[in-house]
Order: sequence, then C-alpha cells, then structure tokens
Amino acid sequence: MKQLTVELGERSYPIYVGEGLLNDIAATLGKHRIGTKSPLLLVTDEQVAKHYLERVKGLLEAGGYKVATAVVASGEKSKSLSVLEDIITVALEAGLDRNSAVLALGGGVVGDLAGFVAASYMRGVRFVQIPTTILAHDSSVGGKVAVNHRLAKNVIGAFHQPEFVLYDIATLKSLPDREVRAGLSELVKEGFILDREFVEWCDANAEKLLALDSAALEHALYIGCGVKAKVVSEDEKEGGLRAILNLGHTIGHALEAVAGYGELLHGEAIAIGMVGAARLSAKLGNPASIASETERILRQFGLPVRIPRHLDTDAIMGAMMHDKKFTEGSMVFIIPKDIGEVEINRSVSSVWVREVVDSLKEGE
Amino acid sequence: MKQLTVELGERSYPIYVGEGLLNDIAATLGKHRIGTKSPLLLVTDEQVAKHYLERVKGLLEAGGYKVATAVVASGEKSKSLSVLEDIITVALEAGLDRNSAVLALGGGVVGDLAGFVAASYMRGVRFVQIPTTILAHDSSVGGKVAVNHRLAKNVIGAFHQPEFVLYDIATLKSLPDREVRAGLSELVKEGFILDREFVEWCDANAEKLLALDSAALEHALYIGCGVKAKVVSEDEKEGGLRAILNLGHTIGHALEAVAGYGELLHGEAIAIGMVGAARLSAKLGNPASIASETERILRQFGLPVRIPRHLDTDAIMGAMMHDKKFTEGSMVFIIPKDIGEVEINRSVSSVWVREVVDSLKEGE
Repeated sequence: MKQLTVELGERSYPIYVGEGLLNDIAATLGKHRIGTKSPLLLVTDEQVAKHYLERVKGLLEAGGYKVATAVVASGEKSKSLSVLEDIITVALEAGLDRNSAVLALGGGVVGDLAGFVAASYMRGVRFVQIPTTILAHDSSVGGKVAVNHRLAKNVIGAFHQPEFVLYDIATLKSLPDREVRAGLSELVKEGFILDREFVEWCDANAEKLLALDSAALEHALYIGCGVKAKVVSEDEKEGGLRAILNLGHTIGHALEAVAGYGELLHGEAIAIGMVGAARLSAKLGNPASIASETERILRQFGLPVRIPRHLDTDAIMGAMMHDKKFTEGSMVFIIPKDIGEVEINRSVSSVWVREVVDSLKEGE
Repeated sequence: MKQLTVELGERSYPIYVGEGLLNDIAATLGKHRIGTKSPLLLVTDEQVAKHYLERVKGLLEAGGYKVATAVVASGEKSKSLSVLEDIITVALEAGLDRNSAVLALGGGVVGDLAGFVAASYMRGVRFVQIPTTILAHDSSVGGKVAVNHRLAKNVIGAFHQPEFVLYDIATLKSLPDREVRAGLSELVKEGFILDREFVEWCDANAEKLLALDSAALEHALYIGCGVKAKVVSEDEKEGGLRAILNLGHTIGHALEAVAGYGELLHGEAIAIGMVGAARLSAKLGNPASIASETERILRQFGLPVRIPRHLDTDAIMGAMMHDKKFTEGSMVFIIPKDIGEVEINRSVSSVWVREVVDSLKEGE
C-alpha cells in the first residue's frame, strides 16, 4: 500500500492506494473517528453496485455500522438536483445525523454527487471517497463536488474535502476497456501539467497500464494523485494555480455538453481537449511539436484525438461561453508550454479557439 | 446609521443598520469591491418586489451595474431545490461568473434561498444580505443558508457568509402587522438567550416597537444583530455554542412542519417554542417563573403562546425526530436557566417533551 497526504492544514487528509484495501474499510473508518452510532450512507451507481455493493455493505455491517444505501443510474445524468433530493430523502429516512458520513463508492459521477450530498446535507457532514475507476483519481482528490445544470456542467456545487480517499486497485479490474483508456487519459494529463518524467514513464509503460498490471497501476495512481494533491494543497479553492488541472477541460467540457453527455466519455473528451490546448499553444508561438507529441502519446492509449464530425462548431463555441472558466468575457485556457509544463492564459482569442476546433474535426 | 462587525477572521463582515441606507446600495457594493464588470443577481419575492424591486434595480443600474432579477413566490415553499434550479437558470442565462454577487432583497426565505444559490453557484460566489423584515435580522447574520426538503426544514444548505448586511429600517414600515409581531418574537429571543437588559428594554418599549418607531427599531436591531454576531463569531459552524440561538426552535420547527409551513409564521412558532423550552426548564428544576415571565412578555407583543389544538402531538413529536438538532438519538434542547441565560441540554427526556407539548395545547 502507498499513502500520500493532501496538505490542507486542519482539513488535511490521506489517500490510500493499494490492492485489496476495501477489505479493511470498517477499520479505516474507525481509524478516522467515524463511529458506529450514527448511520452511514453508501452511495453508488447501478454498474458498481452489481460488483461491490453487497460486499462493501457486508464489510461495513460486520464492522458494526448501520448502512443506508442509495443506488443511482450509471452516468452523468445522475448528477442532477433531482437525484440529489432523492438521496437526501434516503438520508433523512435512515436517520442520518450530523455525525454521520457519506461514502462515495464509484467513479467521478458518484463522487461528485455523493460529495455534494455530504456538503449540503445538514450544511455538511463527513465524506469518504472510494473511487472504483482510474478516471476518478482526479475527481476524488481535492474536494470539488457538484451536480450539473441542463445549461452547464458542475455549476451547482461546493468545495468539500473528504476524510480520506481509499483507492483499492482491485476494483479497477472489472472496468470496461473503453473506461480504462478514458481513465488513463486523465492520469497522463497530470503528467502533462507538471511532471514530464511521469509522461515519459506512461509512454514507456502504456501496454502494462492498458493491461491493468497491478504494480504499474499502483505507481501511476500514486504519482497521478500526488500531482493532484500538490496542486490542491497550494490552491484549495481554485483561486489561481488549481485551474491548471483543467488542461483540456475547456474544449472537453464543451464537447461533452454538445454531444449530450454520454457519446464521449469524460476522459475521451479531455484527450481531444488536450490536443486542442496544444494546438492553441502553437498559435501562441510555442513549438508545434508539443501538439504532435501530445497526440502521439494519447493515441498510444487508444484515445480519440479528433472531434466527431457531427458536433457543430457554433454549438461547441456556445457551450464554452457557458463554462464557468470564463471570467468577465475573456477566454481562459490552460496552455502547455512544453510536455509537463503549463501556463494559465487569460486572453486567448476566440477566433483562434474556433480555428482549433475546426482543425480538430474528424477528416480534416 | 449604526454599524457592527461579525468577527470571523478573514471572513469578517459589517452589518449596517439605519434608515434610508438602500439609497447608497451601489456605493456600498463598490466599497466592498463588488465591481460593475460582472452582472449581479438580485433575488426577491413577489411581495417585496411590489415595493422595492424597481427602485433597487434602478439604483444599481444608476451605479453602473448590470442586474439580473429572480422573483420567487412569497413564503417558505420557495425554499426548494426546484426554485433554486430556476434561479440558477436565470444566473447562467444572465452570464453570472465567479466575480458576480448575489443580492438577497427580502425576508428570511429570500435570504436563505439566495444565500444557498450564492453558496453553490460555481461552488460559491459573493453574497449580500438586504433584509426587509424584522425577523430576518436573525437569518441574515451568520451565514446559515439552506432550502427545505419535504421531510425537514433547512436540511439542504451551507455555511456561506455574506460580504455585508445592509439593514434599511425604512423597508420595515411596509410590513403587515402580523409580521411585525412575528419578527419581534425572534428579536426578543436574542435577549432571552444572553441579554437580560435587552429583554427588559423590549418589555418597556413594546408599544414603540409595535408602532415601528424608527429610533426604537434601530436600537433593537442593532442590539439583536449584535447578540447574533457575537455568538456566530465564537462558533461559526454550530460546533456547540451557536446552537443556543435555536432557543424555541426545536418545538417551533416541528410546529411549522406539522402545520404545513404557512399557518404559523416562523416567529409565532418560535414564540410558542420558547414557552415550551421554559416549561421544560421548570421540569429540570429551574424556577417556574421563567416560563410565566417568558409568556407574559411574548403576549405583550401579541404573539401566540399556545399550540393550535388541531396539531397532533404524535405528528409534532415525529417532526422533531427528523429535525437535524438530534444527535445520536438523544434530544437536544436549548433551556433557559433564567431570563437572558440559556444552556444546551443534550439529554432531555422525550416523555417530558411530550408532556410539555400537551400542556401547551390551546384550551389546556
């Protein structure tokens, strides 16, 4: 098992990464002073429930915990206020109180949703992240929780840090192949942001990672979570630096919104967005090799690097205008200056963005 | 004008109390570094909108601000996730960004609702409280914001402190008589909690307050807000002390829930609840005179001190079980030990609570 800490003063918390950690979930809760008197709420989705719900519930009950469960539909559509309200109904009916904790067992959707339940239920109860996807290494660290509005993603939420993150890499073995690739997209992203060495390691170990080799996954998640933890520690509430984590997200979120949440997985949309950011970088005077190298590495992981032809450029540009990363009308982009180094550019010309979007259309 | 400060370190903020302060709203926003580049969202209800919306909007626009408005139905029913979602639609369509601010113009419902919009929109934007009722002196100070769930009040929310509270007592002059009385209930409550002298002053000045005498109101709101600010400064997130502000609220919230939000005004329910808490105090061995004195003073303000006969005791007890002020099954009550002095009692027998509820039924 590997352990690292997200340093946030009195809100600091550990991330545990290793195979088989779920077996000790009850003891780990106890170690974090989450007692058995108040009921727990275990939130998961239908897909994850099939594999792990009964087992995790059983482990918790064996540890003396009362456990209420909320199983939501798999996919981004569950990140809504109406699903949030349904989960809060479960919480109230189960008698959750201020000493209770909410456990998110699943991917990023479950983590974001359950995290906002924990942030808002009785104005905030404790929260534990148990990510079961590679992608969720990113969303499970850092305390950003939210649901979507029909006009924009993640626009209703909070900053609410978990008590701990428990990453049992055994749970990754049941992931569909496409989700593995999409998860690795966000993991390599952490390297593209500020760890060239990690990008090179991923490049050299792509096959092992795609084959879900335990040692490779443990190392990659440890390093990836470490990058995330470092950035979050320096800027908890996204005052500035933390925005660098959004490399590829401005275009990526817009693609997801226009494609209607589902056609493109988040990690796939981010892969395309990272290539877009690298092409913007070239327009800003940086070497064109950043874009070609980014594209080459992402292709190695079987990730898409082109925008599906039927997605309308105007619609994509419009979706970006609704994105919360716009401030006072100017377009903010995270721009790679090199592999493993980014800058926040607050005055990217929307004309250039449109040109890059067009250049990324399939078949161009 | 009187000014006091809620001391919360870097989140400290002022409360301005005085007649005609709304005239300077634009300048006051500017003083608090809320600039004119990003649009403002002004949230109010239909009743308040009739009197003040056009005027306040005009004052803001004259100061160079772009202003989006959301007018909700008057009353507790607007404190719902669905109304919250509607307001966020307005915010997105108006292009509110992270530098925007949400202004709550109205009573406690508007403040709680708009405050939770501000807390959750893009994970938190700035927030200004402009209370237009006496009752709202309590809810507008301290940063507790929330909406209701059909099973419990204020159960979905956050702690989100405003940038400032602007209390223009001119806006109180249009309040219906019943709301004046209900507001004074919560104002006297601040005295019952920790300022005997203020209770005596209220007792001596009841007529002036009921007649909305400007000087009396300014003094009473200044002192009442001061009590609230003092308690909040010492315990921002209701870890312990802050719970004393809930004097009368355990029974009061249950009465509101059972009566179906509307039959009893909040301040009326709290008045009955304060008498209930005082009667529980007698059962705990304190002088019975606390209850009779509490009742006498509240009657002077024309407030109800008995539970409407048709409200079922079992339903009232059941509603209390859903109230978030229960921890691990034991019943927590704020108990007056004297006029102007309270204690938090975490082990009040539910049998006694039932006896007190029965004893408070009209006609008993």
